[in-house]
Amino acid sequence: MSGHISVIGIGPGAPEQITPQAHTALAGAEALYGYGPYLNRIPARPGQTRHASDNREEADRATAALRHAAQGARVALVSGGDPGVFAMAAAVCAEIEAGPAAWREVELEVVPGITAMLALAARVGAPLGHDFCAISLSDNLKSWDVIERRLDAAANAGFVIALYNPASRARPWQLGQAFARLRAHLPDSIPVIFGRAVGRENEHVRITTIAEADPAGADMATLVIVGSAQTRVVKRPRRVPLVYTPRIGEQPRIDQEAPA
Amino acid sequence: MSGHISVIGIGPGAPEQITPQAHTALAGAEALYGYGPYLNRIPARPGQTRHASDNREEADRATAALRHAAQGARVALVSGGDPGVFAMAAAVCAEIEAGPAAWREVELEVVPGITAMLALAARVGAPLGHDFCAISLSDNLKSWDVIERRLDAAANAGFVIALYNPASRARPWQLGQAFARLRAHLPDSIPVIFGRAVGRENEHVRITTIAEADPAGADMATLVIVGSAQTRVVKRPRRVPLVYTPRIGEQPRIDQEAPA
Repeated sequence: MSGHISVIGIGPGAPEQITPQAHTALAGAEALYGYGPYLNRIPARPGQTRHASDNREEADRATAALRHAAQGARVALVSGGDPGVFAMAAAVCAEIEAGPAAWREVELEVVPGITAMLALAARVGAPLGHDFCAISLSDNLKSWDVIERRLDAAANAGFVIALYNPASRARPWQLGQAFARLRAHLPDSIPVIFGRAVGRENEHVRITTIAEADPAGADMATLVIVGSAQTRVVKRPRRVPLVYTPRIGEQPRIDQEAPA
Repeated sequence: MSGHISVIGIGPGAPEQITPQAHTALAGAEALYGYGPYLNRIPARPGQTRHASDNREEADRATAALRHAAQGARVALVSGGDPGVFAMAAAVCAEIEAGPAAWREVELEVVPGITAMLALAARVGAPLGHDFCAISLSDNLKSWDVIERRLDAAANAGFVIALYNPASRARPWQLGQAFARLRAHLPDSIPVIFGRAVGRENEHVRITTIAEADPAGADMATLVIVGSAQTRVVKRPRRVPLVYTPRIGEQPRIDQEAPA
């Protein structure tokens, strides 16, 4: 009666980026939980129930799925990208920690997926080819001050920066503020990549610079990658430019005292 | 005659983590290039040639594959994990930039894969559930000083840290030095996860703390994840503990002056 829950990453959107492991986990579930548009990407199976929820109800979705699994069911919780990167796996772990003892008996399987920054990086070359970080710009659950300190630290130390959750209707100013913050540390020419709906029909990828980057170019479906001082843009005849960060790391730009 | 090169991520080792997109790209190639053990994971196909090389010959492997593609061939370069994360995609881009003009005419496709940190994170819960960074400990191509500054910056700013290339026969002391550096910033209880050969038969995952972490537990096939002050370990009856980093970000520990 201890039940089973799979938290499954289905990648950024292209069906050919869903792993066989994810398909197997989906096929073995009696019940699918998830944000509606993610569930819509999964073909219906006879005898499998579906429980779609709104995007911002992560904790509720995790508890509903866990409650169901704790009854002895095989439950799948569908996540976009990789479930462990700013997605459902941490929410499920948090509910297991906070919930009734029976939830710790549920078998938990996390099925990794292609997270958005890997898919976007692949579209333009290899901007994440050297040390990088991933920062969520959502200040729903952490203070904006923490986010700014992390942007400062990452830019000063020479990390390439992937910005998740750059903007939404409820968070319209954060990306502009982040770009302004980064411009204080980074040369104007630093490449910035906007990727929207990567791998889906309406994919839109744009390469610009930190000086020119327009925060209005991002919404909920967008990922933004900000290069480092080492990141290169290679022009090619009749092709889009390549963007990559070489593995050779020169001295990062340090515009503050190095930590002790 | 411009040719085609696919740089293909086959994930950390489990066949069920190879995407259909990777299989399609592999099937369409006339010639496969790659590090021998990666090529050995790909079933042989009639008419397809194989060009195995040693692990440390990345630039040579990239140039050999590009030279072949520039003759008009369809070439696949096989990479472990994700080709864009400390792997072959950046090496190929660097050779395209440095090489003859004809190489810029070659069609380049990068096929993303499950990178090691995502696979390891999935095995233990969701340690990368909030802001994180990935740092290569290889000082073959960058100075150790740069690596230490990045470790300091990441730990001070509250990032979870994934350490790629933590150790090899030629680089025996770097991980111990990195742990020592991180101990200066992080509480003793910070969780550390060692994952070796994740997804393969001889997989070995170990959860410890930064105080107890033994660098001798890592080799070339190991990935190490160092938690942040927010990372939690949840004990479970008859199951391995869960490790996760909640999306709720409190103030990071700042043991230096915040940047201006």
